Amino acid sequence: MKVYADNAATTQMSRTAIDAMLPYMERIYGNPSSLYTIGQEAAEALLQARTVMAKYLGCEAREITFTSGGSEADNQALLTGATLGEKKGKKHIISTAIEHHAILHMLKRLEKQGFEITLLDVPENGIISAEQVRNAIREDTCLVTVMYANNEIGTIQPIAEIGVVCKEKGVLFHTDAVQAAGHLPIDVKKENIDMLSLSAHKFHGPKGVGALYVRKGVPLTNLIEGGGQERGKRAGTENVPGIMSMAAAFEETCENMEKNAVKVAALRDKLIAGLARIPHSVLNGDPLQRLPGNVNFCFEGIEGESLLLLLDERGISASSGSACTSGSLEPSHVLLAIGRPHEIAHGSLRLSLSENSTEAEVDYILKAVPEVVDYLRKMSPVWRDLVEGRKEFLL
Amino acid sequence: MKVYADNAATTQMSRTAIDAMLPYMERIYGNPSSLYTIGQEAAEALLQARTVMAKYLGCEAREITFTSGGSEADNQALLTGATLGEKKGKKHIISTAIEHHAILHMLKRLEKQGFEITLLDVPENGIISAEQVRNAIREDTCLVTVMYANNEIGTIQPIAEIGVVCKEKGVLFHTDAVQAAGHLPIDVKKENIDMLSLSAHKFHGPKGVGALYVRKGVPLTNLIEGGGQERGKRAGTENVPGIMSMAAAFEETCENMEKNAVKVAALRDKLIAGLARIPHSVLNGDPLQRLPGNVNFCFEGIEGESLLLLLDERGISASSGSACTSGSLEPSHVLLAIGRPHEIAHGSLRLSLSENSTEAEVDYILKAVPEVVDYLRKMSPVWRDLVEGRKEFLL
Repeated sequence: MKVYADNAATTQMSRTAIDAMLPYMERIYGNPSSLYTIGQEAAEALLQARTVMAKYLGCEAREITFTSGGSEADNQALLTGATLGEKKGKKHIISTAIEHHAILHMLKRLEKQGFEITLLDVPENGIISAEQVRNAIREDTCLVTVMYANNEIGTIQPIAEIGVVCKEKGVLFHTDAVQAAGHLPIDVKKENIDMLSLSAHKFHGPKGVGALYVRKGVPLTNLIEGGGQERGKRAGTENVPGIMSMAAAFEETCENMEKNAVKVAALRDKLIAGLARIPHSVLNGDPLQRLPGNVNFCFEGIEGESLLLLLDERGISASSGSACTSGSLEPSHVLLAIGRPHEIAHGSLRLSLSENSTEAEVDYILKAVPEVVDYLRKMSPVWRDLVEGRKEFLL
Repeated sequence: MKVYADNAATTQMSRTAIDAMLPYMERIYGNPSSLYTIGQEAAEALLQARTVMAKYLGCEAREITFTSGGSEADNQALLTGATLGEKKGKKHIISTAIEHHAILHMLKRLEKQGFEITLLDVPENGIISAEQVRNAIREDTCLVTVMYANNEIGTIQPIAEIGVVCKEKGVLFHTDAVQAAGHLPIDVKKENIDMLSLSAHKFHGPKGVGALYVRKGVPLTNLIEGGGQERGKRAGTENVPGIMSMAAAFEETCENMEKNAVKVAALRDKLIAGLARIPHSVLNGDPLQRLPGNVNFCFEGIEGESLLLLLDERGISASSGSACTSGSLEPSHVLLAIGRPHEIAHGSLRLSLSENSTEAEVDYILKAVPEVVDYLRKMSPVWRDLVEGRKEFLL
């Protein structure tokens, strides 16, 4: 059996998304900046796509800027907040310790440029409070950036409440919604979000395409300079096929969001209940306030990497955390931030489901994981130390 | 008849390029950073694509970084040159007045950050000399960036000669080869190029994908911060389908380069000879040292925009210059740089052919353009002033 359970890393493109792409590769291939018919058809398509994205985010079409993905959108949002802040002499930015690296690494760069960064502590359940944000805001705070939902442990932040605080304090508010968009209902106006990043390949759209919502009145700073595309704010010939495909995928996923969420959350909860029976294990992230498809456990006494390789042998694609950092020997910064010790953080497993996941797949995973964990523990000297009492169990 | 003659703006994707994309959208959709099989298959595909790109550029696979297109690659190359220069206290950059806006606008940004920019004057034929570069290099020059071939007037710069000068002087050399890659033979090592940008959609590949060649030993500066993709130098989940498609398109175009160039150049020369018969017209750019598919004329007494709209009515897709700046009322900076007066620069027409162009299409264009020019001149008050002697002809 083949089980793809790493939908937080990337998803299989839907038929809808592929079909939406093809006409713009084959026939309507004009450059949208061109005056002639085939170019203007492409320009009209872009407007359609912008309108669809805006509809499901609760904003206006002109508030959508297309990018090459979530990382670019995150980078541009932070650069924008920093540039606006600098103009007013405000160089303090608030974020959390569990953001994606597209945020954390960009914050590091800004720190080198003289910005002061406050990373809010995150409690064990992975959820910060709007109160924490309020308490951290200073006279010189120019930007708050808090992810909508975490890519590793799936916890959902109180974005609307943080939005209220930021609005009240007059501080720009960005959210990295790469994991949330298409999976959770988002309304940027109601939630007082000034900037929001998303990525198509997280909701069965294509890789290499994303979007940045920016509230009108907030002047974007260019990350990529050049031609006048995207109202002069993002240079480069627009990826029309990719953008059309993203819009189609977003429409499909948003239209089916409730139905999918019910189905996926039921599978998730079955998976969580089953894996929790493995002794000396712990669920990472909040049990309720989490993405419908996210399951993340730590198992004491094993290495996550070996677990993944053995699961792969059984046809299961899973991860130990963020795909962007695999290959690194460092344990997940998210798991460390919620208080897992190094040796526990190393034994993590993330399973992320989608609406294509089935109950049979979940049953298959629930058979495989306990067996593989058991097998690995039997081979593990650390585990021997634990069961023979030379070391104390942490879980 | 439908005639697409704006291949410098963008091209129709080839069947090869589309077919190369599909398996990575449908089946091998894994995230290349993932450990499991479907992720590793994607990672191997990326290596294949890198190897293909490297083969036809004359470099090593690890010297290729994938980007979202030419503009991003240009931006990152300039940022890299500037960062390296700054570390050595060298803040002078040399370029030309006819670069693409992805270069010129990034240079403007660097200028604001304290860099001094020398834009070399360009003679009427559009070709600078290596001697000009040599004379402009100073003790504090950190970067020379000269485009391989111009996007508007098609002139090809003496890149290998400039490469020799830069190597001799120890100055980093970048070339924007967006118009050249896939159309002219390139060998980055023989030509002493340190960095080179290219874009897939200019050679029948997909939009939204490009590459940056960087000689090993030159440490790239990130434009997009985040995950560890592309050896940590370009964050964001790799656009695997797009990259595979680009490599397939590049291989196809490079393997057929000579054959295509002979065919396309013959069509180009027929077009040039025919259009040159229109009175009070001038060919822009060098007649010989130009891209095989590029034709660019100015016609006195008319507006380029009206010309394009009337040609579009006859089914011909053409442009008056760069697609990135259409919609702007400013005349082309390239035509101004080669000495065309404003009123002449406004009456420009670029026709850019590809190997899909046919002799019948050229004949059709050769019938349409003189008729449309004649029609527009008859309606033009400027033209009346010219023929009735109240103004002097410039051409």
